[in-house]
Amino acid sequence: VFLAVLDKHFAMLEQPRLKGKKVVVTAGPTQEKIDPVRYFTNHSSGKMGYAIAEQAQREGADVILISGPTALPCPKGVKRVAVETAQEMYEAVTGQFADADIVIKAAAVADYRPKEVFTEKRKKQPGEWAIEMERTIDILKTLGEQKQSQLLVGFAAESEKVEEYAAKKLEAKNLDLIVANDISASGAGFKGDTNIITILTRDGKTKQYPLLSKQEAARRIFDELLDYMKRQQQS
Amino acid sequence: VFLAVLDKHFAMLEQPRLKGKKVVVTAGPTQEKIDPVRYFTNHSSGKMGYAIAEQAQREGADVILISGPTALPCPKGVKRVAVETAQEMYEAVTGQFADADIVIKAAAVADYRPKEVFTEKRKKQPGEWAIEMERTIDILKTLGEQKQSQLLVGFAAESEKVEEYAAKKLEAKNLDLIVANDISASGAGFKGDTNIITILTRDGKTKQYPLLSKQEAARRIFDELLDYMKRQQQS
Repeated sequence: VFLAVLDKHFAMLEQPRLKGKKVVVTAGPTQEKIDPVRYFTNHSSGKMGYAIAEQAQREGADVILISGPTALPCPKGVKRVAVETAQEMYEAVTGQFADADIVIKAAAVADYRPKEVFTEKRKKQPGEWAIEMERTIDILKTLGEQKQSQLLVGFAAESEKVEEYAAKKLEAKNLDLIVANDISASGAGFKGDTNIITILTRDGKTKQYPLLSKQEAARRIFDELLDYMKRQQQS
Repeated sequence: VFLAVLDKHFAMLEQPRLKGKKVVVTAGPTQEKIDPVRYFTNHSSGKMGYAIAEQAQREGADVILISGPTALPCPKGVKRVAVETAQEMYEAVTGQFADADIVIKAAAVADYRPKEVFTEKRKKQPGEWAIEMERTIDILKTLGEQKQSQLLVGFAAESEKVEEYAAKKLEAKNLDLIVANDISASGAGFKGDTNIITILTRDGKTKQYPLLSKQEAARRIFDELLDYMKRQQQS
């Protein structure tokens, strides 16, 4: 048994599961300017996306990491493209999409941005201020519509009805796999080093995981994705 | 001359200029929640405020650093109070004000916050979204009104008419000294390690400095403040 485990281990090292594949990973938040000082953003740390990029690289893939502003160092062997806004993220991702094999959208892209961006710092004024927001481009939906042979993976970070929303999103965005996590659960979510994920695939499988490090979660995502790929080839 | 310089140097080391003084410094941005994921903030890195706290500690003061979310380590010997929102900043600063000798407000506190904070993540909806914003408490103005013997120092980070706005702010907020900087100038502003400052004091003096590290800028702020204190004692 021990030798079998060792064999399996070395087989894995010798035959990286994603060798020759181009994997595009997005990570981090976006920042949407109101003026030169103020902006909208969200609590994504980028850790989950960076862990996925690192894991893909370890599995032998050519990895492009398209990242919003984070404090994280670029994983070794990974090519990072830095972006700031949802619009820049959209352009960077679609520019890498045509020849990608797998696209994993772990970034928390703003779905709204201010309609008006002030070029000078807006002075305080008496009374209230209604900031008019407009929708940004839905990157995942666009990719789902454009997709040919690419495998598309999305995230659903929710604070309620997590699996229900995730299943709807998988369908609506034409994804192959979605990683759902309840950001209101302790140990899960944006800022920490751990996550509690549920993985749903297009062919109707659902798998819940216990608390994992973001590195372990990244590994499980590729396990599920590779299993899904095998099932697709067999069917 | 050399000995005189040395003498002056050692005199300074032996007699810290702020010995026995309680100095309260605020630093960093605030974050104003929209829902559990989204928030408003600004590009303050906290570096200028942290450099001021460090310098005050070096000058012998008892330093309280009230800081919004930043990635910076707390300077040695400084007591840090972590806050997130403008409201928390207000409560922390006013709580430290009564027995403070010097209060330096280097934080970039949000002057607006969302009127409504959603307890669950707000789902995307078709169409636009007007976020109603309300004013936060003006901390500097409140301190200016409450001030007894405290010296009050503010910042004016502007992208146009910098000195004009700074002079108005010094007057309107009843400050003793204001540090103005043009955030649109290269080498100045929120994110970098340098700053280009102009210092205005209540008694009408204005001094422009060239590009300085934030550490050097912090030193000059105390130089000007101590000169101002001497002039006040003499008059």
